[in-house]
Amino acid sequence: MTLPAAADLSFDIASLHAAYAAGLSPAAVLAESFARHKAADDPAMFLYLRDLDEAQVEAAALPAFDAAAYPLWGVPFAVKDNIDVAGAPTTAACPAFAYLADEDAFVVAMLRKAGAIWIGKTNLDQFATGLVGVRSPYGVPRNAIDPLIVPGGSSSGSGVAVARGIVSFSLGTDTAGSGRVPAALNNIVGLKPTLGALSASGMVPACRTLDTISIFALTVADAHRAFRVACAYDAADAYARPIAAPPLAPVPPTLRIGVPDAATREFFGDAAQAEAFAAALDQLRGFGCEIREIDFTPLYQVAQMLYEGAWVAERMAAIEPLFRSNPEAIHPTTAKIIGGADKLSAADAFRGFYRLADLKRAAEPMLAGLDLLCVPTIPTFYSLADLEADPIGPNSRFGTYTNFVNLMDMCGIAVPTGPRSDGRPGSVTLLARAGQDGLAAALAQQIQQAAHPVLGATGKPLPVAAAPVGALAPGEAALVLVG
Amino acid sequence: MTLPAAADLSFDIASLHAAYAAGLSPAAVLAESFARHKAADDPAMFLYLRDLDEAQVEAAALPAFDAAAYPLWGVPFAVKDNIDVAGAPTTAACPAFAYLADEDAFVVAMLRKAGAIWIGKTNLDQFATGLVGVRSPYGVPRNAIDPLIVPGGSSSGSGVAVARGIVSFSLGTDTAGSGRVPAALNNIVGLKPTLGALSASGMVPACRTLDTISIFALTVADAHRAFRVACAYDAADAYARPIAAPPLAPVPPTLRIGVPDAATREFFGDAAQAEAFAAALDQLRGFGCEIREIDFTPLYQVAQMLYEGAWVAERMAAIEPLFRSNPEAIHPTTAKIIGGADKLSAADAFRGFYRLADLKRAAEPMLAGLDLLCVPTIPTFYSLADLEADPIGPNSRFGTYTNFVNLMDMCGIAVPTGPRSDGRPGSVTLLARAGQDGLAAALAQQIQQAAHPVLGATGKPLPVAAAPVGALAPGEAALVLVG
Repeated sequence: MTLPAAADLSFDIASLHAAYAAGLSPAAVLAESFARHKAADDPAMFLYLRDLDEAQVEAAALPAFDAAAYPLWGVPFAVKDNIDVAGAPTTAACPAFAYLADEDAFVVAMLRKAGAIWIGKTNLDQFATGLVGVRSPYGVPRNAIDPLIVPGGSSSGSGVAVARGIVSFSLGTDTAGSGRVPAALNNIVGLKPTLGALSASGMVPACRTLDTISIFALTVADAHRAFRVACAYDAADAYARPIAAPPLAPVPPTLRIGVPDAATREFFGDAAQAEAFAAALDQLRGFGCEIREIDFTPLYQVAQMLYEGAWVAERMAAIEPLFRSNPEAIHPTTAKIIGGADKLSAADAFRGFYRLADLKRAAEPMLAGLDLLCVPTIPTFYSLADLEADPIGPNSRFGTYTNFVNLMDMCGIAVPTGPRSDGRPGSVTLLARAGQDGLAAALAQQIQQAAHPVLGATGKPLPVAAAPVGALAPGEAALVLVG
Repeated sequence: MTLPAAADLSFDIASLHAAYAAGLSPAAVLAESFARHKAADDPAMFLYLRDLDEAQVEAAALPAFDAAAYPLWGVPFAVKDNIDVAGAPTTAACPAFAYLADEDAFVVAMLRKAGAIWIGKTNLDQFATGLVGVRSPYGVPRNAIDPLIVPGGSSSGSGVAVARGIVSFSLGTDTAGSGRVPAALNNIVGLKPTLGALSASGMVPACRTLDTISIFALTVADAHRAFRVACAYDAADAYARPIAAPPLAPVPPTLRIGVPDAATREFFGDAAQAEAFAAALDQLRGFGCEIREIDFTPLYQVAQMLYEGAWVAERMAAIEPLFRSNPEAIHPTTAKIIGGADKLSAADAFRGFYRLADLKRAAEPMLAGLDLLCVPTIPTFYSLADLEADPIGPNSRFGTYTNFVNLMDMCGIAVPTGPRSDGRPGSVTLLARAGQDGLAAALAQQIQQAAHPVLGATGKPLPVAAAPVGALAPGEAALVLVG
């Protein structure tokens, strides 16, 4: 193939690796990455940008291109700033909390060993508390699609950086939906792994029993590739679990997919979102899936427990020394939310667990016959002005279809479904049982291929190479692009 | 066989069923049961004794004797008074807490369906908080072996009733050791199932996430038989788990058994207990077991969390309305312990879970190569006078080898090992991973057979019929006795 210019690439990994195979240098890609960041002119996106020369030294030291041995060879990525990268500060978007990380988080180290090159640490809702992206003293990253809309959070900078094609993928974290809501708002993929699949070593906890590192990417194939690299059992993380991460397999012919029934399908008046979701379900039916409407009430009851139950106390446990000694160092909205923990006794915490156990048990019969759930990733869109007017309400509504997921021990992946009737990005999330990350991703890939949307805000289409599920080895992608 | 007199039977199930097969009537057994209770002259043993005539009506209504269809046919049993029996009060040893039970607890119903006949509700340490049996406003049941020694708790009455041969088996509960300590103190078997194997529906919770109903019996075979009957998944109990309860199988030839090493073997100066434990280990070696000495420190650290960590707040959650409205209705020692929950925030609770998760993870490599653990059930004996002098210390020390077990999600069985050098009953507990109840019971049966001790305080030996592990179907037992 002709050597493509880095500036012409969308930075999805299939395109990048095809270009590397054709002779493009990682130096050119890194330079383009930094140029795109500069062009974005968004000082709130990254809280720490790596020195380009230092990144270039690392790129120059890569072994010969070998996508089989190094599945992330030369792939630029960004890291949410509640995850450690050696030598960089970790702030969790709270200057008073900041520390210099001695070593890479377990997951970051795995990604770098596979050839990925980090370029910076991204902004977030402080302490990963929020789904909006406006709760940071470092400003609000600009939504990559529409600057009037919030970027989503808490992984705001990580979502925006991928959507703009500055990096191929990024790390977020996801407790209540922080790895999915920004994906929907920025027209990208958000993979929320099974709890414990990715080590939390080197990550600032939000709710330690409900946290996971998550992955944003332009394509499902890329998100799943990074997931497979990062998914390794870490005995040093007491909440790590051994979870298998096999390659994407073809989607089983008939999947039974639960969706909210008419009475529990909630869009807060957004007809375009309702229509886009209905269209996505029609598409799933077209794939041969059986769509089953279920009553989501038990799942919404679970969701309510995340902030109204005892789990907010985990957020307090994570930052209590700072909260007690220097409360004014904390974002006022964040402090208000986390301060709610002070009303909760240990007995309240246990009552919360009992109620969750009862709700999970009650939901079991409903979920038993289903392979997956499909939900709108977000019920509607909220603007910066909406959040100015009410910092809490829109945030809560963003979590309608995300808050229950980790409490239910499900995994999920948010995937673009193409533009809605009004041009805003459509997105659904597929949810599966713990350990079924691959099943959710396989169907998500089919959805993305069928929608064939432009990638993020790059204006570039899904590459052909990503099309046949599981049919291409990394080394073969270049040949398809040539053809 | 000659028709035996009920008075000559130890009430172990093999002997009872052999006698039933020979024509003895359940009416005679029930009459003898009540006569033994009367002879024991211990008003603190039962908090509610069933009307004998009512029990006789139930016995008369039993179908024809068929031990295969009704494995507990005509078997008298007692129920700890924190477990519901329809028509009887449940007090949890707190008069102000008492209520009349509308229906049988799930487990009680299972046992009765299998032919067992309840005769009464037994005394306990109030709200199942304690390992001593002296924390009840209804008095202290008399230890069946030595009246100067505490009966053990919290399942005090249930332990004593079995040891005296008043019932064949009884239900206890076990959170911190309440189903094992009374077994050691009264020379009987105490089977503590895997958490969730036996439904907690109809049981007053102590620590709902750590509670299980337990079983006391004269023989391992009997305890395991009742366990198999009671072990059924109950969807109405959110903490129930589907656990298999197969018949006892022969013990695998080489078991690797972890035991506390010299530095972490604790008897509080009781040389006879140390000697008895060493002898029990020699016996296990004689069976072909490989004894591995391990550092029990991580397990003791787990144990400390039961009362020093957040779990005491579960006890508060269980009785908070009473505790707030009528604190003087609660036993002073119990109130003091449970009141400790008021110092614990929800954040403290989560910090406790994190620490437990870390400790469990740290213990994993040590436990990985082991099939079972073997510990002394109790480190030493304490008298009523000891508890008068110090209501807390001896109680804590009783829990040395029991407190960590439910937090570690292990199952266990306490089994008599025969008299110590001073005549006091010896007892070890075998501990296994969740779901391995059968493995622990199979080796416990081998220990009991080898020790061939008298059963409880009945003066009667282990019946021959119980000997070959897994070799006898219920219906065959009578033939062996005849032989």
